[in-house]
Amino acid sequence: MIANPYQLPLDQTGSVTTPKGFRAAGIAAGIKASGNPDLALVVNDGPSFDAAAVFTSNRIFAAPVAWSRGVTADGYVKAVVLNSGGANACTGPDGLRDAIKTATAVAGEIDAAVMDVAVCSTGLIGVRLPMDKLLPGVSAAAAALSADGGADAARAIMTTDTVPKTASYTSPDGWSIGGMAKGAGMLAPALATMLVVITTDAQVRPLALDKALRAATVVSFDRVDSDGCQSTNDTVICLANGASGMQPLPDEFVQALSAVCADLGLQLLADAEGAAHDIAIHVTGAATESDALEVGRSIARNNLFKCAIFGNDPNWGRVLAALGTTTAVYDPDQLDVSFNGVMVYRQGALGEDRSNVDLTPRTVEIVVDLHAGSHQATIWTNDLTYDYVKENAEYSS
Amino acid sequence: MIANPYQLPLDQTGSVTTPKGFRAAGIAAGIKASGNPDLALVVNDGPSFDAAAVFTSNRIFAAPVAWSRGVTADGYVKAVVLNSGGANACTGPDGLRDAIKTATAVAGEIDAAVMDVAVCSTGLIGVRLPMDKLLPGVSAAAAALSADGGADAARAIMTTDTVPKTASYTSPDGWSIGGMAKGAGMLAPALATMLVVITTDAQVRPLALDKALRAATVVSFDRVDSDGCQSTNDTVICLANGASGMQPLPDEFVQALSAVCADLGLQLLADAEGAAHDIAIHVTGAATESDALEVGRSIARNNLFKCAIFGNDPNWGRVLAALGTTTAVYDPDQLDVSFNGVMVYRQGALGEDRSNVDLTPRTVEIVVDLHAGSHQATIWTNDLTYDYVKENAEYSS
Repeated sequence: MIANPYQLPLDQTGSVTTPKGFRAAGIAAGIKASGNPDLALVVNDGPSFDAAAVFTSNRIFAAPVAWSRGVTADGYVKAVVLNSGGANACTGPDGLRDAIKTATAVAGEIDAAVMDVAVCSTGLIGVRLPMDKLLPGVSAAAAALSADGGADAARAIMTTDTVPKTASYTSPDGWSIGGMAKGAGMLAPALATMLVVITTDAQVRPLALDKALRAATVVSFDRVDSDGCQSTNDTVICLANGASGMQPLPDEFVQALSAVCADLGLQLLADAEGAAHDIAIHVTGAATESDALEVGRSIARNNLFKCAIFGNDPNWGRVLAALGTTTAVYDPDQLDVSFNGVMVYRQGALGEDRSNVDLTPRTVEIVVDLHAGSHQATIWTNDLTYDYVKENAEYSS
Repeated sequence: MIANPYQLPLDQTGSVTTPKGFRAAGIAAGIKASGNPDLALVVNDGPSFDAAAVFTSNRIFAAPVAWSRGVTADGYVKAVVLNSGGANACTGPDGLRDAIKTATAVAGEIDAAVMDVAVCSTGLIGVRLPMDKLLPGVSAAAAALSADGGADAARAIMTTDTVPKTASYTSPDGWSIGGMAKGAGMLAPALATMLVVITTDAQVRPLALDKALRAATVVSFDRVDSDGCQSTNDTVICLANGASGMQPLPDEFVQALSAVCADLGLQLLADAEGAAHDIAIHVTGAATESDALEVGRSIARNNLFKCAIFGNDPNWGRVLAALGTTTAVYDPDQLDVSFNGVMVYRQGALGEDRSNVDLTPRTVEIVVDLHAGSHQATIWTNDLTYDYVKENAEYSS
């Protein structure tokens, strides 16, 4: 796994129930034909019910996204219910009614208003959810809620994930952040959704929470760019209850939240279906951060580059060709490109011998120095492999 | 092969020597280790020497592109020399000197000024050309020039192409257009360059020729979008000598040139390495042509969609998710999507049963009706297959 750039101690055995005052559950409601767990519930027991959320920017978005945008708009959320086994996307007005019925069922179980229950779904597009199984599942999940149910919840939201993804950070001051995620970045089959729930017992007011969540996702999930494909269901929800009684400094909280988000993002990347390499593309010396991001994304989305990495080929020509399609500021005669520490292209000309590059490790670090300024950004991506094609060709959705 | 949308009689056995007053040759100079033909020469014998060209928009462009931009800028070109076996890209000042030496050698052989000789190269990036083989090859090619050498020239520019690509159109009025192309769209290994030379014996003045070539390429090569990757060497050069003595109407000439370009583009698509399907994405009912193009390209570049087609899966969800990332005008509740004539999504809801779609033929026609206006555009692309990954991972460049 690519190293987390944040120098904070994180615990991947922690989860959404690591912070005080949260309960969770994950059960098998029968939505998945496999009988695997498919329904998760995360409940905030207060004393505060602050919340923030970010959603897919795709204009074709699923019913639960439509519903949860409304729920989270006032910054007050008591619970999140998540199902795998069906995305409830492109299902029309009936699909929206199903999402509302799900929230209503949760509200009845935990004594909340229906408008305070967010809903997330992941799975196949264009198929109605089996409400006859989902609604009894909500009752079962509510009955199973526990203060150590975070791991079960993380397992119940898996689709093509091979492992559950959780992480937590505990501050020396006694507050903590816990999170769970599913999906393989944006690389997994059939637009496998990225769903993330993060909890914290720190005291953070809704507007500050919103600002912190946006700051953290911009430098974490937004920079995991497995295949440039954007889901209809992506959702990141953060719940804060203040149960620790501690109020972190804003910057301190943003750093911790960013670290947890980066860790979950890198776990998604490491479990991306069919990938053989995890790639960090560091763009340095950029005139602006926006230039650095544009260059990083253009390389990350270049199929020829991604195939080369799969073939363990330090193909700097494909990096340059991708760079050439951007609007970033640079002088072609000043560019440096390194693969795993070997500068194969230096000041716009041949550098060290490419045979010195070893791409057999799963982790690959590319550095592109534009020599045009002092800004930088890193994009994380995967290679393009036979297995990626296989999974996405054979998985009929 | 996808049907040419232009209703003009074309001849795929015609070539750059079909129009009067052009000679061509293709020989083996020893640039390719395989010993296959690797050097082509196309010479205009007049009486006019009008020319127009379009080049890659990649900001990282090869030495021959830098040279030929200058050569073609005055609309006066006597010959084009093309080599396969090396792209002469990212080779610095030495590479530019190699391109100029090649043009100089041709100029000496055919009695032209060096500034009237365009140069095109295709092959591996970042490697110098073997000038000790290339320059004698120029003499051999000049000696082999003939009025029926078009087929040889087309063969000598092949890299990973499995077949040479040529086409011609002959007007009832006696003028004609001939062309040759190489490359597999933008899909082939190692940024395999698209090189195209088109000749005509029609009388067309340089400015009109430039306008016609831009109009024709915009609706042909620009809409072949195999994998969204842009080469460092792409070049389309058109030479006009007026030898027929005929001056076609501007619209008539643009139509014929567009038809020849579309035919060559569709031949490139049909020979794209590793592809199992040729896909035409027709976007109709768009508010603007630009909207139609944006939607078509976003679908054509969506790896999940491309994998689905490889898997013979009429996955309309992936079409919608790609559409959702665009800025095009549409109402989600009005969208129609058809796969090979079966409307699987109608007015923003489930349409005909997807099991009625047969994606086993190589040719796939997708229609997306935005119901937002009267504009339309078609993008041609390929599917994403094991063989695409294999070719691009194993071919070390």
